Formats: sequence, C-alpha cells, structure tokens
Amino acid sequence: MLPVHLQPQSHVPLYIQLRDQLRALVHAGDLRPGDRIPASRELATMLGVHRTTVANAYAELESEGLIQGHVGRGTFIKGNGNGLKITPPAPPVLNGADGIRWELLFADERGDEVLSRLTASAPVDSLSFVMARPAPEHFPIDELQICVNAVLRREATDVLNLGPSDGYGPLKEALIELLRQEGLTVRDENLLVTDGCQQSLDLISKAFVRPGDSVILENPAYPGAVSIFGGARARCLGVPVQTHPEPGGSLGIDLEALEATLAANRVKLMVLTPDFQNPTGASIPLASRRKILEMAARYQVAIVEDHIYARLHNREERIPSLKQLDRSNIVIHIDSFAKVAFPGLRVGWIVGPPAAVERLRQVKQTTDLHTDQLAQATLAEFLRRGLFTKHLAKMRKVYASRLRALDEALRKHMPEGTRWTIPDGGMCTWLELPLGFDASELLIHAKERSVLFAPGRYFYVQGPQPNTLRLGFASLDEKQIARGVSTLADILRAEMRKRERGVRRAERSRVALV
Amino acid sequence: MLPVHLQPQSHVPLYIQLRDQLRALVHAGDLRPGDRIPASRELATMLGVHRTTVANAYAELESEGLIQGHVGRGTFIKGNGNGLKITPPAPPVLNGADGIRWELLFADERGDEVLSRLTASAPVDSLSFVMARPAPEHFPIDELQICVNAVLRREATDVLNLGPSDGYGPLKEALIELLRQEGLTVRDENLLVTDGCQQSLDLISKAFVRPGDSVILENPAYPGAVSIFGGARARCLGVPVQTHPEPGGSLGIDLEALEATLAANRVKLMVLTPDFQNPTGASIPLASRRKILEMAARYQVAIVEDHIYARLHNREERIPSLKQLDRSNIVIHIDSFAKVAFPGLRVGWIVGPPAAVERLRQVKQTTDLHTDQLAQATLAEFLRRGLFTKHLAKMRKVYASRLRALDEALRKHMPEGTRWTIPDGGMCTWLELPLGFDASELLIHAKERSVLFAPGRYFYVQGPQPNTLRLGFASLDEKQIARGVSTLADILRAEMRKRERGVRRAERSRVALV
Repeated sequence: MLPVHLQPQSHVPLYIQLRDQLRALVHAGDLRPGDRIPASRELATMLGVHRTTVANAYAELESEGLIQGHVGRGTFIKGNGNGLKITPPAPPVLNGADGIRWELLFADERGDEVLSRLTASAPVDSLSFVMARPAPEHFPIDELQICVNAVLRREATDVLNLGPSDGYGPLKEALIELLRQEGLTVRDENLLVTDGCQQSLDLISKAFVRPGDSVILENPAYPGAVSIFGGARARCLGVPVQTHPEPGGSLGIDLEALEATLAANRVKLMVLTPDFQNPTGASIPLASRRKILEMAARYQVAIVEDHIYARLHNREERIPSLKQLDRSNIVIHIDSFAKVAFPGLRVGWIVGPPAAVERLRQVKQTTDLHTDQLAQATLAEFLRRGLFTKHLAKMRKVYASRLRALDEALRKHMPEGTRWTIPDGGMCTWLELPLGFDASELLIHAKERSVLFAPGRYFYVQGPQPNTLRLGFASLDEKQIARGVSTLADILRAEMRKRERGVRRAERSRVALV
Repeated sequence: MLPVHLQPQSHVPLYIQLRDQLRALVHAGDLRPGDRIPASRELATMLGVHRTTVANAYAELESEGLIQGHVGRGTFIKGNGNGLKITPPAPPVLNGADGIRWELLFADERGDEVLSRLTASAPVDSLSFVMARPAPEHFPIDELQICVNAVLRREATDVLNLGPSDGYGPLKEALIELLRQEGLTVRDENLLVTDGCQQSLDLISKAFVRPGDSVILENPAYPGAVSIFGGARARCLGVPVQTHPEPGGSLGIDLEALEATLAANRVKLMVLTPDFQNPTGASIPLASRRKILEMAARYQVAIVEDHIYARLHNREERIPSLKQLDRSNIVIHIDSFAKVAFPGLRVGWIVGPPAAVERLRQVKQTTDLHTDQLAQATLAEFLRRGLFTKHLAKMRKVYASRLRALDEALRKHMPEGTRWTIPDGGMCTWLELPLGFDASELLIHAKERSVLFAPGRYFYVQGPQPNTLRLGFASLDEKQIARGVSTLADILRAEMRKRERGVRRAERSRVALV
C-alpha cells in the first residue's frame, strides 16, 4: 500500500497532490527504479478518487521520465527523470528566520533550461551544431540601418510612444501584404503581432489552456513548447513523428497514433510544425495535412501551426500550410522573422480566427502591453522596401548549400548503422546512432574535440530515444560542417570499436568458461 | 438551500467550482441583488467542505463586485460587477458543428480592458487626462538616432542575434552604474532585464503565484496589476491607500489595514508603489516604509516595489526606495524607462535577491526567450552617453511645471466639496467629487466637450468609489491643463445645479403633500 494521503478540500487539484506525493516518494528513495506501482484503476479504488485523477498524475510522471508503463506488465518506477531537471515541489508555507527563502516560492514546474544548458558549457571556438539559428555573417546590417533611420526620421513620435497591443499599424499592413503574396489572405482582425513564436505559444497557453487540459505535442518536439504547456500544468501528450516511415506510412506526425490519441483523450489543442519540424526536419505531406485538418474538425480540436521554418524550403513550391488549407477556422498559425533574419529583434505574429485573435490580444495586453515598436517599425520598413523577400531568396540558397554539404559529409563519414533525415529545407537534421549508443555520452567526447550538438533526449515529451541527436547546420559554413561531421564520425567509430572489443572480450571469457 | 453541487474528484479546485456556480446563479437571475447568501461557515457545513473554500470563493466574487459583506448583517448579492467586464465561465467542452467556437475556449478571467476601453472612444482632438504617459513632444529623437546608429555600427551582429535571457550585457552594465549613482548597489545576479513593468509583474506572477494564493494590492491600484494577479486566479486583497490621512495617520497604504490583512490571511506577495502611486499620486513617508519592511519581515511576505514613477520627483531628495532600505532581502523592485522616455521601447528591469532573479530569468526564457536587443542596446548607449540623466533632469522640470498648472487650475475652478491630491511628482492627481456624484457620468458630458479622464472606479480592487477620478497631466501642456480643468469644473457645476434644483423640487413636492 502506497503511503499517499489526498486532501479533497485542498485548493491543489487531486492529481497534482498525487503526482507530487509519488514524486516525493521517489526522491526520498521509498520508491526505487524497477518498483511496480498499482494500475491506475486499482490505485483510484484504493484512494477513492476518479480513475482520471490517477491517470493524469501518471501521465505527468511519465512525461517527466519518472515512471514508465509496459503493456501487459504494469507501471514501473523508471528513474529520476530523463536529463530534465526536476525541481522539488514547493512547500505550502514560507519559513526561515532572516529573509524569505525564495527557492521555496518556486513552483514545481519543469523549468527546463534545455537551450541554455546545451550552450552554456561550450568552448568559445567550438563548431556548434547545437542551435537552429540564422547565419550571423549574412545579417543585412546596412539595410537594417537604413530602415531604422528612415523610421526615426519619419515617425519617431509614434514609434517611441505606447502603441496598440495588436501591433504597430504599418507592420500589420506590411505583413498582410507579405502573406497575400505568399497565398494567405489575412485581414487586420486575423493578425496579432507578438514578441516571437516563443511568446506566441505562451499567449496561446495563457488564453486557452488550463491545468489538467490535454495538449498534443509532436514527439520529439521543440523544448520551448514542452516548457510552456508543461509549465501551464497541461497534460502533454506526445504523438510520434515518423522520420523514416514504413512503406505505406507518411513522414511527419504519425496519423494513426494521432487519431488514437484524439479518440482516447479530450484534447484541447494540438501543436504541429508541418514544415521542417524542429528537431527532426520532417515535413508533413499535403495529403496528410488534409487528413489532420479533417481529424481536428471531427474531434473539434484546435491546431496551433508553427510556421517558423516554412519559408526556408529548397523546393520550387511550398506545400500549402495548414492555415491555407483550413476551411473550418480551426488553425492558429504562428510565425516569426527569427529564422530568416534578426532573431535578436523579438517580433513574430499570430494568424487566427478573429475571436481567437481578440482573446490573444487581451492576453498580450495584460502580459506586456505590446511588442517593442522600434523593432516593429524597422521590420515594417524592411518588408515595404522588398528587403525581406530579397534577403529570404539569398538565405534559401545559403542554407540549401549548407544542407547539401551536411548530407554529403554524413554520407562520406558516418559509419554503417547510423541514419539521418534529409529535409528539403529548414535548419536541422536528425541523426540516429546505432541502437545502444547514447548521444549524451558521445557529446562528452565531442566537446573535448570542440564539436557540439544537441542530444535528442532533450526534445522528447516522453519515451526519449538516447541514440538520437539534432544537428543544426544553418550557422556553420560548408567547411565547418565537413570538419564537424568528420570529427563526430571519428568519435563514433572509436566508440564502436571500444564496444566491439568489449563484446569480443565477453565472448572470449564465455568461451573460456565453457 | 443553494443549488450548488461540487465535485471533489474534479481537477477544478473546489473554490473555483463554487465561485463559478454562484456566479452562474447570479447571471441566470436565480440570485438577485439584495438576496442574502449563507455565511461562509454555514455554507461550508451544508456543502461538507472546508470553510476556507467558501471564504475564497466569496473573496473572489466580492472582488468582482458580485457580492458584498456587511458586518453583522451577512453577505448579499450586489450586482453584476463594478464596471469590470465579467466573461461567463468557460464550459468544459467544445461544440459547434462547423469550426471551433473560440469564445468557449476563453477562460473566465477578468480580462479587464480598462486602459484601452478608456481611450478607445476618445475624439481625436480631445484634451486627454486619461493616460499617465510621458510628453511625446519632448522625446529626445535625435539623441536616440545617434545611439541606434552607434550600436549598429559597432555591435550589430551581437544585437541582431539571439541573446541571454537575463538581458543584453552592455545594458546590464549601464543599469548597474545608473543604480549605483542613485544609491542602490546591484550586482549582475540581482538584475533581470524585462519588456517593462507590465511584463515584470507578469513574470513575478508566473514565477511565484499559484491559483488561490493571496496577494495584497493597493486599493485603488494600477489596473494592469489587478489583471495579472486576478488572471492568475490569486485572491487579490485590496488595502486602502490614504490620500487625505486623518491627523496621526500617514499618506499611502493604510498601515493598520495592512497589518490586519497580513494577520488574517496567509499572504504570498504584496505589491506596493511607494512613490507617486498610480492612480492616487500618494507617496509613502520614510517612517511608514520602515514599518512596512518590518511587517513584511515579520509575516515573511515578499514585497514587489513598483518604482516606475520614483525618478519624477519635485523634491530635492528622493525618499529611499524599499529596496534601498531592504535588510531582509524581501523586496523585488521593478522599474522601467517608460515614464521618463520611450514607452514604445519595451524595456524595463527587475532588481531582487539572486535566487528570485534566477527563477524569474527561467520564466522569462520560457515566456519569450529575451527582450528585444535593438532596444536594449540603444538604451544602453543612451545611458552610457549620459543622455538619460540629462533627459530626466529636463523632464522633471517639465512635469513640475505642469503639475503646478494643474494644482492652480483646480484651485481656481473646482467647486467647493471637491478635493484632490497634490503629489510632489509622478504623473497623476486623484480627484474626489462631492459624495453622490459619479465620475463615469461626468465623463459622458466631458467627452461631448472633448475632455477625457479616467473614472476612479476602474482602479479599485474592491469597493469602488464612484466619485473619484484620475487626472494624468504629463502629456498636456500648461494651457491645455488650464482649459481642460476649467471645462471639467463647468460641467461639474452644471451637474451640481441640476441636482440642487432636483432637491428643491423634491422638497417643494414634499411640502405640497403635507
């Protein structure tokens, strides 16, 4: 019998109480890896609560990597999390004699610091495949400076004063024109300017998601999305992304698993990146996009479409976005300038149905009044002068060449048993090492040789695959890419040889014993 | 017996369930203004829940203006809210055949749109006392342009790329130097750059406040703070601000009421604006500041100090801030450039204990990665060149002159029975009309004559005083101020005459009846 005591009269939802008490038992060592815990139905009966309460608590602990279910065998304590920092739950009261113990005020969120932790320990001169960022040597600085000055000469008083929370008028106009040229008809009331896609996701979470709500994420997914919806105490349901589909299957989110997840849960939102998904690089084919929209309409689930990488395609034609195909007004589309140029200017946008956009505008206003107007006005000028289109065309060529270099280097150097995605655009490739290898261990050796990448485990909503890793290629040139991949392949080969020797030694000792 | 049915096994906290069901009964007309509802102890016994559950639900409904308690008489249905929009609670499921009904996804927050609603219907050429904004004709545009160009020539690649979530290094250094000159010693780990005070409050709420937590706000308060903590489902406890203290009392937050509120509630945070409080203009004297710090330390309650108006003083010396007096590491201090210059550049900062700042940095990263770097770098240059100090000195003179003009005009024109605060700085004055007059009605007539102000009711956390109003004087010149006040006084006199005639008529008819 588990020593769990729930208080129905508490303000803390029961599933949160249960989750926190189970986690505390693991941290205290009362539950150890391998221990079996009761099935949700069984524990629900024991505690006199609804089964969903236990299922929700388990879902959270599973997404933290603390427990794992095995079909037909039960649910087991797995470990202390999958490399994601788990901060202990906040005690209900403050104490400490002199001054407040601030750390006790912290929430028990998964404050995962993935991006910064990955880059923090990097040697300065490392070849870094860690980030999916634009190439700084191509920033159109002179053009930007011309735009800033034009804006300050012409409209400084407007720009420097407080502005509307839905966005600076001239930027909204310029965006509407850009989207029209790209084949998306948008009106002023469909458009909200934000501080970028990270804020867009945060506003969407604040506006529409409540603790306990179910949100579908791709698995693996952008860690910033997991942080946001996890932090909002949503149930994050990861649906697998197919990177090497079986015959008959299709690239991108697994449609069968998606349908099953929609059927089994009352889902509020699903967050998808149809083009050059971060981290896998996978793009969803047109036919699958239509099926996803049909499913979303049937289950009445809103789709958040992350469109941030879509412009960086090597194809002649873009696949229409979910928003372009959206007949049911079911898609909220988020986008940004950050992957084409200027991630340091924090400006993005949301396109959605007017009612959703109005709600998001209210949340935006409460959150930070509005987005910085010098950045908004400068980008408006950049769009109006056709500089964005020109710069995009240039960067598509730059990135296409880098992607080719990456694919060539991988083919040339990587040992058999590894495989990778070959996206036709975007900023990253997803590599799978032979089974049994752990990319986090490989990173330790790679760092010593000044090459960095992002281990795949950080991107998983649940069930992390330790043998995966992401290579962001956009901010390295062709030579750096070739050198970095060659180094990684060397290290991997060395590890494979070590293992091979270990296997042979084990075999020899087995032979000796016989 | 109230038709209330709580579900202990639901994810929704019981007090939220109770609050929503009571509100629904009011909206449906099952409970009407004047109806008495059971005492919290009584209802708790009836429902089999803890008394705190009922007390919390009542506190929320009271802060919405839906119910009111009268000492010794009980708690009564009051009305449909105090001018604050109450959106109906979100139903748990979606429906609608074609497309999602987005409005049903909305939370039942007080999405109060106070600032924008006040300004939305304003004629373009109106004299507006509505906002507390800096004077746009004094924006140092040329100086700013020099700074932008210096930054883009020197450090464009850093500025335009992604940056650290705690703030752009050169800005942090420049702020540390500014604060040192002002008498506040701050180190890098005490300082977080944000998008401004609105975002700072939002980050603080996200980092430290959970649904059901109690937060003390000044009453009246800045509506943006009420939106944030109300939106986070905190219990917002308003403590009165004294604008015309009785002999022996002191200006600013009522210390006796503060102590009583701290004693009666487990409070998590208190949000105070010690200097030129918005909306009243009241400043807390030094002795009271020390008492507040002593109380906060005794009750182990963190203080959020809003310092946004403090630099705009007409005194020789500033009163030391709570942060300067803070010996217990109990104060989180929020500040911004927005009231001195450039509110359109969304940059502010937080000073606090390292543990609190680190937590806030993590939340900032999840929220929007970091603040716009072009704005940060430009303001750093503006500080480094001494332009901020120079501009501040100029604006203090400009605002002092406007404040004198406002006080003179009020003395000259306002009828007997009105009174107002005479702050020695800041951006607003708080006016009380004779009892029985409603500033919202006065605004209808004032709008017809193209004069605008903010009715005081919008600023109250609870118990709004309809006879109050806020005059923001910073963006009007001396002549406009004189003209605006004279018009307001005319309208008020006309209303007073109407009422006088009404009273006399009523007296006559009473005489006739006798």
